[in-house]
Amino acid sequence: MQININADIGESYGKFHVGNDAELMPLIGSANIACGMHAGDPTIMVATLKSALASGVSVGAHPGFNDVWGFGRRQIRMDATDLEYLVTYQIGALQALAGMVGAKVTHVKPHGALNNMAHDDEAYAMAVGRGIRAADPNLIYVANVGSEMMRAGERLGLRVANEAYVDRAYDDNGKMLSRERADAVIRDPARAAEQVLRIIEEGALISLSGRRIPAKVHSFCVHGDEQTAVPVMKQVRTALDEAGIEVVPLPVLLA
Amino acid sequence: MQININADIGESYGKFHVGNDAELMPLIGSANIACGMHAGDPTIMVATLKSALASGVSVGAHPGFNDVWGFGRRQIRMDATDLEYLVTYQIGALQALAGMVGAKVTHVKPHGALNNMAHDDEAYAMAVGRGIRAADPNLIYVANVGSEMMRAGERLGLRVANEAYVDRAYDDNGKMLSRERADAVIRDPARAAEQVLRIIEEGALISLSGRRIPAKVHSFCVHGDEQTAVPVMKQVRTALDEAGIEVVPLPVLLA
Amino acid sequence: MQININADIGESYGKFHVGNDAELMPLIGSANIACGMHAGDPTIMVATLKSALASGVSVGAHPGFNDVWGFGRRQIRMDATDLEYLVTYQIGALQALAGMVGAKVTHVKPHGALNNMAHDDEAYAMAVGRGIRAADPNLIYVANVGSEMMRAGERLGLRVANEAYVDRAYDDNGKMLSRERADAVIRDPARAAEQVLRIIEEGALISLSGRRIPAKVHSFCVHGDEQTAVPVMKQVRTALDEAGIEVVPLPVLLA
Amino acid sequence: MQININADIGESYGKFHVGNDAELMPLIGSANIACGMHAGDPTIMVATLKSALASGVSVGAHPGFNDVWGFGRRQIRMDATDLEYLVTYQIGALQALAGMVGAKVTHVKPHGALNNMAHDDEAYAMAVGRGIRAADPNLIYVANVGSEMMRAGERLGLRVANEAYVDRAYDDNGKMLSRERADAVIRDPARAAEQVLRIIEEGALISLSGRRIPAKVHSFCVHGDEQTAVPVMKQVRTALDEAGIEVVPLPVLLA
Repeated sequence: MQININADIGESYGKFHVGNDAELMPLIGSANIACGMHAGDPTIMVATLKSALASGVSVGAHPGFNDVWGFGRRQIRMDATDLEYLVTYQIGALQALAGMVGAKVTHVKPHGALNNMAHDDEAYAMAVGRGIRAADPNLIYVANVGSEMMRAGERLGLRVANEAYVDRAYDDNGKMLSRERADAVIRDPARAAEQVLRIIEEGALISLSGRRIPAKVHSFCVHGDEQTAVPVMKQVRTALDEAGIEVVPLPVLLA
Repeated sequence: MQININADIGESYGKFHVGNDAELMPLIGSANIACGMHAGDPTIMVATLKSALASGVSVGAHPGFNDVWGFGRRQIRMDATDLEYLVTYQIGALQALAGMVGAKVTHVKPHGALNNMAHDDEAYAMAVGRGIRAADPNLIYVANVGSEMMRAGERLGLRVANEAYVDRAYDDNGKMLSRERADAVIRDPARAAEQVLRIIEEGALISLSGRRIPAKVHSFCVHGDEQTAVPVMKQVRTALDEAGIEVVPLPVLLA
Repeated sequence: MQININADIGESYGKFHVGNDAELMPLIGSANIACGMHAGDPTIMVATLKSALASGVSVGAHPGFNDVWGFGRRQIRMDATDLEYLVTYQIGALQALAGMVGAKVTHVKPHGALNNMAHDDEAYAMAVGRGIRAADPNLIYVANVGSEMMRAGERLGLRVANEAYVDRAYDDNGKMLSRERADAVIRDPARAAEQVLRIIEEGALISLSGRRIPAKVHSFCVHGDEQTAVPVMKQVRTALDEAGIEVVPLPVLLA
Repeated sequence: MQININADIGESYGKFHVGNDAELMPLIGSANIACGMHAGDPTIMVATLKSALASGVSVGAHPGFNDVWGFGRRQIRMDATDLEYLVTYQIGALQALAGMVGAKVTHVKPHGALNNMAHDDEAYAMAVGRGIRAADPNLIYVANVGSEMMRAGERLGLRVANEAYVDRAYDDNGKMLSRERADAVIRDPARAAEQVLRIIEEGALISLSGRRIPAKVHSFCVHGDEQTAVPVMKQVRTALDEAGIEVVPLPVLLA
């Protein structure tokens, strides 16, 4: 049995260094690489692509709003067509740099506030999907379970990887708890490992209150900017190994 | 007989409109499209690509320094590797958007201060050339006659289009006069047309003082931001027509 | 009798020129000067300050979201404290440049999407107000009639100038019609002049359907980016002259 | 006896955190606060101002080129007038935020590549000086010993604080060794402490080869982004204490 683990990687910017990229890379199957709009300048993109290639990790674009100061985490209301082209722009930039180092972009996952907005907003979810399809119709659209992105990807004929979180608690509607709640983020490695295994075994998200929300999950995301990301991922990997579940890159999983 | 005319196009940005794109497009053979760093956001890039396609004009990337405020006209000293990747980034973004509308990027011409610096600085000229080659080794490097860019393009095995200006006067070393001189810019349509024809017929630039500097020119550039660009280009086209010289896209010329 | 006319001025950016500043300046009483975040770099700010000073026009800050590409017209959801400081930052920058040329910043009017959001959102309206008060408690807060900004200004002990539009139609709730409606913008100089006079004479906004919404208006805004701004303003000024109503700077009006 | 120690502080940006501000603040006399162009957004500026105020550290503006990606370390050739206004803009923004928290801006030190260029280029040194004087003629211009900035400050009638480095080695002309040399940066706390004491006691810089270059130094700068900054500064402070030399804010020293 196989699943995928993805993480946001390459979110430094110029002289500003963030994240645990070197430690996370060997623990994941697919890297979502920032494309210069919220983080990740061309030089960091190249270094991240090389590092992913060396680790056998598949690479995807992680497009965000053009907002370095806000790190792409401020919601921006923009024209859906502008958004579509902004997504294609970022994917194209990464594709060219990937070609430079002999890598290939195989998935796309929107970043931060763009991901949050596209989760619930059909126009944004479709704009992202169209932006993906224009760059390459074989790209995999990584979409939160239950989101408008899932539906948009299907409607556009894209391959969709359904995503759940390693380190976030869910409510009874299958939505992540807001970060404003103290219990939203799972920082205990044992609990994170348990959540991943239960989602796989039961074919469902399990809410904080214990409710089952049926869901077929292809990929689990770990938030690399959490202090606990590395210990959490190590324990998740150990648990998956013990359960005989292999972590593979997205194109292998969806082949 | 055939030659090429190129112009910088698509240099608006968001709500800021500049240039005479609609009037210039039918008069040129190839468009250098700004790629978002000094001007030209994704939406403007798409509109410009469509317009070029409709006019039978070939499209190229016009990468610049990341400096909207300075419109890419401020010299920036940066690491040559950073520059190389910045060039590939911009080309890649345009390639993806071109694919979206069914166009193909076939040349690259650096913008503004980057062009000026790469004219004389071997490291910059090579960085631009490497950035081009990484994006697509079949791309044509548009390089001022006599510049380091010409030599870099040859050394890297790229096709090079030698460029001269429709609307700029030359000194006895074959360099453009600085814009600070009153006689640097040729705004008289008749003089511009004469300059173009003489360069073609004599196979040489003719300096203000009358000196011949031998040069094989493939492409003439017109500065679209000059008030006189459209009347200048109209007269140049008329003169070329009368002389039986056809204006063609760069890939046709260098085929 | 006296009233004020204000307009957004100095919204060029680097090499990107917009607006009819030179023609509008003699027709208004107060200029809202862009402060570098959505438009208006330091050099343009200085030129605009000098021009206002020469025309006897009072100067105000016109702070916007940090979004040049979107020209400050994209709604951005940000922390209210970040917004407060961003407003003070922009006012302070303009104050220092005003000091350089012997001018004094006497009012503040938020720009574009910030204005729209602060119209209805108390937290934003208060953040803008606090940002103003921190820069100088004597500054006048220019606030749309009926907006949260009016109330925020009063609660914070700021002087408030109630604002209506020369060139926009109102609905029965006293709100501007959305620009998406064809009849939202008044481009006919005679109709604009009539609207201004009726609002003054009746002490009320008059909706499209003819409804009276009582309102004490201190300042009328003209949108400088409309093609018709200059003819509209000329006729408004003529009508005001004929009615014996003087156009004065905001600090004179609220003295 | 008294001297000053200064450091660049507040160079985080949005979600990007850099530096050892909390540890350095108690060890210095004056803080150079980034003003939003190369680093340091409004919210970080406010936090840094509060922290300096709480530590009894005087605050100065640390204006840089508008280049977040390059962290203000890329040399940019710009018009001297544009530069002058850009400096005033940044100082004004900081002044307003300082007023908000009850602090006062009392000095200015240019950042990174702007500092390097203004060191040798009279036009840049004068532009920075004029930008300072326009914001407040009582501001202290912090200028490297032997630089054009020292001369510009004097010519403009500004108070000048002559600056040397705690942690950089000098050549026989009194210039800092380039960072490309392995021995350019002094990371050994004992050597740094010795350098500071000798410069004070001998009234001269001492080059690596032992040459004395007479210099009256008011302020020593420590590079906060060096890993060794905190241990270096601790030992320097201990050595100064033992020698009976007090570290005071710049306005106290130059009173």
